[in-house]
Amino acid sequence: MKKKIKRNYYCGDLTKEHEGEEVCLSGWVQTRRDLGGLIFVDLRDRSGIVQVVFNPERKEAFKKADEIRSEYVIAVKGKVCRRPAENVNAKISTGYIEVIGEELDILSKAKTPPFPIEDNIKVDEIVRLKYRYLDLRRPSMQYNMIFRSKINKAIRDFLDENGFVEVETPVLTKSTPEGARDYLVPSRLNPGKFYALPQSPQLFKQILMVAGMDRYYQIARCFRDEDLRADRQPEFTQLDIEMSFVDVDDIISLNEKLIKYVVEKVTGIKVEIPFARMTYEQAMEKYGSDKPDTRFGMEMVDISNIVGSSSFKVFSDVVKDGGRVKGINIKNGGKAFSRRQIDELVEKAKEFGAKGLAWMNVTSEGIKSPITKFFDEQTIKEIKDKFDCEVGDLIVFIADSNAELVMTSLGSLRIYLAKALNLIDKNKLNFLWITEFPLLEYNEEEKRFVAKHHPFTSPMEEDIPLLDKEPSRVRAKAYDIVLNGTELGGGSIRIHDAALQEKMFETLGFSKERAWNNFGFLLKAFEYGTPPHGGIAYGLDRMIMLLLGLDSIRDCIAFPKTQNASCPMTDAPSEVDAKQLKELHIQVKI
Amino acid sequence: MKKKIKRNYYCGDLTKEHEGEEVCLSGWVQTRRDLGGLIFVDLRDRSGIVQVVFNPERKEAFKKADEIRSEYVIAVKGKVCRRPAENVNAKISTGYIEVIGEELDILSKAKTPPFPIEDNIKVDEIVRLKYRYLDLRRPSMQYNMIFRSKINKAIRDFLDENGFVEVETPVLTKSTPEGARDYLVPSRLNPGKFYALPQSPQLFKQILMVAGMDRYYQIARCFRDEDLRADRQPEFTQLDIEMSFVDVDDIISLNEKLIKYVVEKVTGIKVEIPFARMTYEQAMEKYGSDKPDTRFGMEMVDISNIVGSSSFKVFSDVVKDGGRVKGINIKNGGKAFSRRQIDELVEKAKEFGAKGLAWMNVTSEGIKSPITKFFDEQTIKEIKDKFDCEVGDLIVFIADSNAELVMTSLGSLRIYLAKALNLIDKNKLNFLWITEFPLLEYNEEEKRFVAKHHPFTSPMEEDIPLLDKEPSRVRAKAYDIVLNGTELGGGSIRIHDAALQEKMFETLGFSKERAWNNFGFLLKAFEYGTPPHGGIAYGLDRMIMLLLGLDSIRDCIAFPKTQNASCPMTDAPSEVDAKQLKELHIQVKI
Repeated sequence: MKKKIKRNYYCGDLTKEHEGEEVCLSGWVQTRRDLGGLIFVDLRDRSGIVQVVFNPERKEAFKKADEIRSEYVIAVKGKVCRRPAENVNAKISTGYIEVIGEELDILSKAKTPPFPIEDNIKVDEIVRLKYRYLDLRRPSMQYNMIFRSKINKAIRDFLDENGFVEVETPVLTKSTPEGARDYLVPSRLNPGKFYALPQSPQLFKQILMVAGMDRYYQIARCFRDEDLRADRQPEFTQLDIEMSFVDVDDIISLNEKLIKYVVEKVTGIKVEIPFARMTYEQAMEKYGSDKPDTRFGMEMVDISNIVGSSSFKVFSDVVKDGGRVKGINIKNGGKAFSRRQIDELVEKAKEFGAKGLAWMNVTSEGIKSPITKFFDEQTIKEIKDKFDCEVGDLIVFIADSNAELVMTSLGSLRIYLAKALNLIDKNKLNFLWITEFPLLEYNEEEKRFVAKHHPFTSPMEEDIPLLDKEPSRVRAKAYDIVLNGTELGGGSIRIHDAALQEKMFETLGFSKERAWNNFGFLLKAFEYGTPPHGGIAYGLDRMIMLLLGLDSIRDCIAFPKTQNASCPMTDAPSEVDAKQLKELHIQVKI
Repeated sequence: MKKKIKRNYYCGDLTKEHEGEEVCLSGWVQTRRDLGGLIFVDLRDRSGIVQVVFNPERKEAFKKADEIRSEYVIAVKGKVCRRPAENVNAKISTGYIEVIGEELDILSKAKTPPFPIEDNIKVDEIVRLKYRYLDLRRPSMQYNMIFRSKINKAIRDFLDENGFVEVETPVLTKSTPEGARDYLVPSRLNPGKFYALPQSPQLFKQILMVAGMDRYYQIARCFRDEDLRADRQPEFTQLDIEMSFVDVDDIISLNEKLIKYVVEKVTGIKVEIPFARMTYEQAMEKYGSDKPDTRFGMEMVDISNIVGSSSFKVFSDVVKDGGRVKGINIKNGGKAFSRRQIDELVEKAKEFGAKGLAWMNVTSEGIKSPITKFFDEQTIKEIKDKFDCEVGDLIVFIADSNAELVMTSLGSLRIYLAKALNLIDKNKLNFLWITEFPLLEYNEEEKRFVAKHHPFTSPMEEDIPLLDKEPSRVRAKAYDIVLNGTELGGGSIRIHDAALQEKMFETLGFSKERAWNNFGFLLKAFEYGTPPHGGIAYGLDRMIMLLLGLDSIRDCIAFPKTQNASCPMTDAPSEVDAKQLKELHIQVKI
């Protein structure tokens, strides 16, 4: 039997250093070109591309080289030679050399692929997903997959070094009525009963703290049966962390070190710690968002006090109603926005939920604005001072008796303006902690307070007395980590005190029975000695997407699902045999 | 607010080195003893136990110490002191010191646990699983979990170092008709359709090779809805590996290095490589098993040739029928087994499927056996030579016209004898490769050949011509890794040649249509340039169980399921709301 060509180098690893060496390569044919009686093949593998040249002197190899087409899989034996100076391609690391092919094996033929295996191609995403094995051959997708693997590795190295134990929690678990919609799995051995796929390992990680594991982590698959948006998948990956005998600062500090380590290790980008911190209240006041993008300024300014008693009813009335008037200063906006464009801004503001948008142009001849007439000189001065106005600035205002609406709509407008004015430095990585989230929010539908995070989130100690009097003012020991305006993850210190936990359920309007029905096994566990504990969970797909600067999480997931949660490659989900359903004691009912 | 005691040491980390230091500890109360007016507390955390002493001089702390009970969670501040010589406990690393408690916080009270938190207790396993958070507090279970985490880490370190990319494959995937029973997940967005949970990432890992990932690994959760045995779980963890441009030796060699690295790193036990290798045929002949335990000898010896023409019909008839006569020499068995015990052995052999068991006692006065009379002197001599007989040996024989039955029943008897005679050195780690498995086995029910591994397993090149003539004799490029008589994992080189794949399906009696219906997306992928590839998968739970010397995989899984696939702690699986089922377009039908 003929001796096989056995790879001893990756294509992309060959450089001038290897000149004169006999090498064996394997890979896919990127291109074949015939030129001056020679056959040039660009051979591609995971590491890169190298040029292989076949000349007619090597009859057998030359003949085979003539057969090959794009995406054929071949093995080549040959000698590394320097390219003639005029043929050097300084853009790639292998561009100084070429391999003179001596032997060639065709390992696998290939049909013409439905799209070329190269980056920056325009192909319908469904086609890419259907031929995912071809799509993943493209250098950018290979890069994304390898990047993702490196992120995982760096996370694990750091956490291992810091005493965390990786524990695998069940995928077949119990359906709980809170949270998002569960994926269910019928049980064959327990007729009429169902497992649920976990929305997160939340209860298990708390159980592990009760079990004394002290520091737990897991890169865990989680499942939510929700209608899909661009950055949602039915199954997604969560970096899940929980620690015992810690408070907020311990968790924040450890996670800053984790992020610094991982990002610096994998991307080489320098990360400064500690990160900025902002309370939920500050974030809402300044940015109108609990995940502000701080890569640019344009902070929101509150002028309710200044204009509350003005004759401009639109402003003064909302202030009297307990509402707010807030604005942002668009530096040099006077030139950037024509009158017509300002009208468009007003429409945008309405899209974001505001009733309207007032504005003032700061010109060298004073303020120009339809509303100037309503304010006396002193008020105008105070407004100008408050916004640090300079000639050329454009100030826009939103007023509403619903204070939250003022913040969120102006916050959205702020983001819109930053994009429109190209104010965002794409090279920045602005990490930011948001702390002191509200513990509760009032649910109008259910006419009760519900937990903003979950019922096990601990209130801040100094706010516990407010649980009875003003539940809405109680702040939680909860925190989110935000990167460039996107939430990367969040967590909290959990309640570990039985009496406080009961108080919490009371505040939520839960009967003891209901609490035990929903969370019985955790409450029972808490009776046997529970350490103070807390943790965090990161949406890993999203983190990787952001670090890679991708627009879609699907580009950093090997086999993602489409909008209707199906896989064009495997055709999952699919119909199954009646026998299978019978064994599972279920039937289809459409 | 009172300042909290903030842990700065783990309990088990304190030694004489820390004498005089003020330390803060947190953990669970193992025991509290009152002695000579002092209160002694054994404080436990993940790292170990340390003794804390409270004396009445520290009034406040002493009073609190009086309240605490077993499993209370406390925080202690105190000074490390040397124990008086008479109180030293040299058995534990903290036994030379004690902590004189100055401050004490009770962080959480505890009910009396249903079983003590210590090793070597006899508790019903259902109770252990119901109170898993207590069971996991026991030092041995904490050790197992941490050991498991270390194994995972070592695996990842090695594979990362060797150029493997970790890729996450889907959990919501497509049901395939081959293999074990699938767990199904109804799709809400695709009425009447179902996902299946993966039995292994087999097809995806091959797709990843087609995609050019070159070296893939994943520690993957897999699911099989089978009736459970001691070492089976509905969900289990697989170390999954696949490589491109390799043959059997490459995979075996890499995996030997992997196992050596992981075992040495985590256990400190020296592992010699390369491991022993044995073909499937050799293993069956010598050990009657494709996963032989080679920690002891007692190899099987074939005497069909010697006794085939004897006058002992039981032997000669089976040989004429194409069957076999095989035996094993139980060294010094003559004394170990009384006549009555030999009769019991005969019964055992029957349990293992043999029709009977013949035997010969080698005494100083010659062979004693009911069957000696059937053999002439020359035959007796040949038998004695073949078995290397010495005075005191007991030889047992099994004969059957079904050769395989001879091997498997005698193989089982061999294991039984080794255990009965205590021949197994529990400290040995005997790794062994079994190679050249049969590609096909004849299925009497379906009256056709079926793949022993799966239809993508490559035959050995030299046996390809036999596919037409004698399919049963075709050997596969398949291999299993065996440790101490248990299969740890297995894999194969896959077919990557379209023509050979078609031939294989033909041999299996598959129509082209059926092949495409079952494996369409993989066959389609293979049309676009497929590298030669192969891989392996390890049952990680089982590997960890063996390395820890456990009897049950449930002892190295944090939250395992019971025999009926339920979880006594969470009560999964459970009934769900009718609304949930309606959304999923299914109903229960019992």
